[in-house]
Amino acid sequence: METVSKALSHGGVQGVYRHDAETTACPMTFAVFVPPQAKDGPVPVLWYLSGLTCTHANVMDKGEYRQAAARHGVIVVAPDTSPRGEGIPDEAGNWQFGSGAGFYLDATEAPYSANYRMWSYVTEELPALIAKNFPADMSRQGIVGHSMGGHGALTIALTYPDRFKSCSAFAPIAQPSTAGWSKPAFEKYLGADTAAWRAHDATALIEDGHRFPELLVDQGTADSFLDDGLRPWLLEEACKKAGIALTLNMREGYDHSYFFISSFMDDHIAWAAARLK
Amino acid sequence: METVSKALSHGGVQGVYRHDAETTACPMTFAVFVPPQAKDGPVPVLWYLSGLTCTHANVMDKGEYRQAAARHGVIVVAPDTSPRGEGIPDEAGNWQFGSGAGFYLDATEAPYSANYRMWSYVTEELPALIAKNFPADMSRQGIVGHSMGGHGALTIALTYPDRFKSCSAFAPIAQPSTAGWSKPAFEKYLGADTAAWRAHDATALIEDGHRFPELLVDQGTADSFLDDGLRPWLLEEACKKAGIALTLNMREGYDHSYFFISSFMDDHIAWAAARLK
Repeated sequence: METVSKALSHGGVQGVYRHDAETTACPMTFAVFVPPQAKDGPVPVLWYLSGLTCTHANVMDKGEYRQAAARHGVIVVAPDTSPRGEGIPDEAGNWQFGSGAGFYLDATEAPYSANYRMWSYVTEELPALIAKNFPADMSRQGIVGHSMGGHGALTIALTYPDRFKSCSAFAPIAQPSTAGWSKPAFEKYLGADTAAWRAHDATALIEDGHRFPELLVDQGTADSFLDDGLRPWLLEEACKKAGIALTLNMREGYDHSYFFISSFMDDHIAWAAARLK
Repeated sequence: METVSKALSHGGVQGVYRHDAETTACPMTFAVFVPPQAKDGPVPVLWYLSGLTCTHANVMDKGEYRQAAARHGVIVVAPDTSPRGEGIPDEAGNWQFGSGAGFYLDATEAPYSANYRMWSYVTEELPALIAKNFPADMSRQGIVGHSMGGHGALTIALTYPDRFKSCSAFAPIAQPSTAGWSKPAFEKYLGADTAAWRAHDATALIEDGHRFPELLVDQGTADSFLDDGLRPWLLEEACKKAGIALTLNMREGYDHSYFFISSFMDDHIAWAAARLK
């Protein structure tokens, strides 16, 4: 693991790191904020999964999470959203597939299956690296994400409910297997058999019996992806049927951007911190 | 004035606007955050002047000012740092002169004097535009800046002490007329006669009798520009001799980046708000 940059911020250290990842068979870059409390021993870890087109840097620059993370004493890890680089199969110009659009799943279809393994990367390889190199208490992990990363946070928490003590999302893709901007990617990554897609669809996972005790979702009403891509009411319906306590905050006039995310970041850090204590 | 973008954030509106500026003879872009309190009537205005290489966007994306500005009810205006575009004289590859490096002065030397008039732009044209188009109480203005923008904030406040009720800076260039990274720009913008430079140098202005009641400066000790470019001790010495109350916070381990600025942004917004009440 190589340190790309490190800067003191809000009393903690915001770092950017790079390593040669086995799962994605390419170098991967990620950001880690370590709060000041880590000087006194391991602290909880909050995973932040980003949306389409993002790298580790978007939330690091615009997410405004450090003040609250420093206050609550939480490490924040922000992975990239896909493998990248020369030799990685991609569709130039398609922002909903390939680079920046890994959808937090392991592709099974050629030629994507060799690199697009973001599920294994985010749930196995990167956690092991974090546990080894940072003052992280891996028995206390939370997960949060935005849009495609909200989908990632929900599906990962529903799959590993014992590993995560908190899960929340900003404007998550509630049902990616049927949404126009994610369905073509699912087909190319996972093949035409939609049965395999259900493991990477929050509402399908809930229908199939997966559970997580409580979920927090914030969603802007002026989000241009609300009706076609995000559809939080599908998650609401699934949670209602399954008895999952979902707090869904519809935020009047907010859009899909980091201007929205940063406005409610404190709430999500506090939500996680309360469950990671 | 044209609206480039608008987004709800922290209960207020973060907008980006563009207009054809007379002073700089080119289109200029700027960012304005209007806090929720403006619904009930005009609110104070805090000017944020950015550093070398920045546009309006850097602090808008990374400055983390909206939460505090919304709490205190302050408009934040972030201008660009220079004229830009085709036909504007520039030195490609020189980040310390030309585009992104207007130094908040009116150039008197050809070919720069036609466009590089950031002093007039920031102290006259843009304030008039803000007064006309936003719910701004122009009788309550504060100014803050970073690096080259800290220089701008200090020199403008020292020149117009009656207009501004607060002035603070992050890592300001304390004495640009003698610093290696600003002296060549002063020569090209203002000519070889250094007497004319004193109006754009905070320590020289103070030596020449200009006063401002109180100043707040935060400076990182790990800032790579500290010894050669910034030298806050020159400002400290000038303030001491002149009886200006300077609060100089040397921040252990902090660098020159927005990771530093955002860490202390709340303090600077609170400093301004207390004086703008």
